[in-house]
Amino acid sequence: MKKAVVLLSGGLDSATVLAIARSQGYACYALSVDYGQRHWAELAASKKVADALGAIEHKVIHIDLAAFGGSALTDSNIAVPLKETEGIPLTYVPARNTIMLSIALAWAEVLQAGDIFFGVNAVDYSGYPDCRPEYVAAFEQLANLATKAGVEGRRLNIHAPLQFMSKAEIISKGVGLGVDFSMTVSCYQADESGHACGLCDSCRLRRAGFEVAGIQDVTKYKQ
Amino acid sequence: MKKAVVLLSGGLDSATVLAIARSQGYACYALSVDYGQRHWAELAASKKVADALGAIEHKVIHIDLAAFGGSALTDSNIAVPLKETEGIPLTYVPARNTIMLSIALAWAEVLQAGDIFFGVNAVDYSGYPDCRPEYVAAFEQLANLATKAGVEGRRLNIHAPLQFMSKAEIISKGVGLGVDFSMTVSCYQADESGHACGLCDSCRLRRAGFEVAGIQDVTKYKQ
Repeated sequence: MKKAVVLLSGGLDSATVLAIARSQGYACYALSVDYGQRHWAELAASKKVADALGAIEHKVIHIDLAAFGGSALTDSNIAVPLKETEGIPLTYVPARNTIMLSIALAWAEVLQAGDIFFGVNAVDYSGYPDCRPEYVAAFEQLANLATKAGVEGRRLNIHAPLQFMSKAEIISKGVGLGVDFSMTVSCYQADESGHACGLCDSCRLRRAGFEVAGIQDVTKYKQ
Repeated sequence: MKKAVVLLSGGLDSATVLAIARSQGYACYALSVDYGQRHWAELAASKKVADALGAIEHKVIHIDLAAFGGSALTDSNIAVPLKETEGIPLTYVPARNTIMLSIALAWAEVLQAGDIFFGVNAVDYSGYPDCRPEYVAAFEQLANLATKAGVEGRRLNIHAPLQFMSKAEIISKGVGLGVDFSMTVSCYQADESGHACGLCDSCRLRRAGFEVAGIQDVTKYKQ
């Protein structure tokens, strides 16, 4: 069985990605990153999702990006925007995807896995630069130059299977693969029991996605 | 004054890089990464070097790459090779430079710094894939796609000023810029007081560099 490292945030998208990787026959090593985000509900969800979807192993790696701040997700002095805003929103965490992919790359090399999956999306998304297709392609190129695997001709592939899907399509795909979305947490400021605010960008995208997909949304929104 | 993030390991090369960045007029933010390396002497050295060379600030970020292992530098069950070996040596830490540059990128964005300096070298080096010029170029390309700065047209530059210098040239350059190399620790398995083994790849390169440069090597080697 081919091995893959799957970045798992505990949200809706990455749960679907794990299910996709499993459906393609990969032995999946789930990786979550505790980067100093506002809440732990998402990381608690990632553990449940990894178990439920048959990951071989689940690791949580800690790195304190709150030491730098600069984002509503890592600095409690910056409020999470509750309305749509122009441009790249305050919830953008500088270099987050690059850091998470780099950590995934480290584990992939040690496991001798040739595949890394992650759940970025460039359709129903918050406009983060590190979710765009050209970014994913550049990281794949880098990965093959950065590693012993790449030098020795064992190609590393970065898979972003949700890249061109709408949120509704992602939800339908996940349901079709047996993902229990009630385990997942998307909200940028969920409380400790995983209740969602219902107002942030991530909640808005999630709620609208279920509606368009015509699938019941069991998320517990506060508003 | 233009701001730069400078990756600082506590070794000879990165100390010289910090001195170079300062000599070019940058306000330098020194960044060290505690990634679970075998010893702390290098990180203790980085603090002294940052102070001595006038860094505005010095941050140490922790990330436990020992959770993955796979390198003589992060897994105490793998011995540091004491002779030159063929190919990429066991001291190669999977994705280390990519992770460190990604963290530097995060801080650079928050500081609104357009420049990142790091001390890779492709002449007198251990043959790591993530020290090669094509790797540095690929990371720079990625950095500009990954970030808000890049999207908004504020270019990010990755500087690797030692890339094509021999170890002797680096040492001469550092001495010329006032670097006190007695503060630095290069050994892969230095003891807590910073004494070097004298046998590992890094010690061999350092010792030969001082010899060729005709500069007294004050390093305390055990052998």
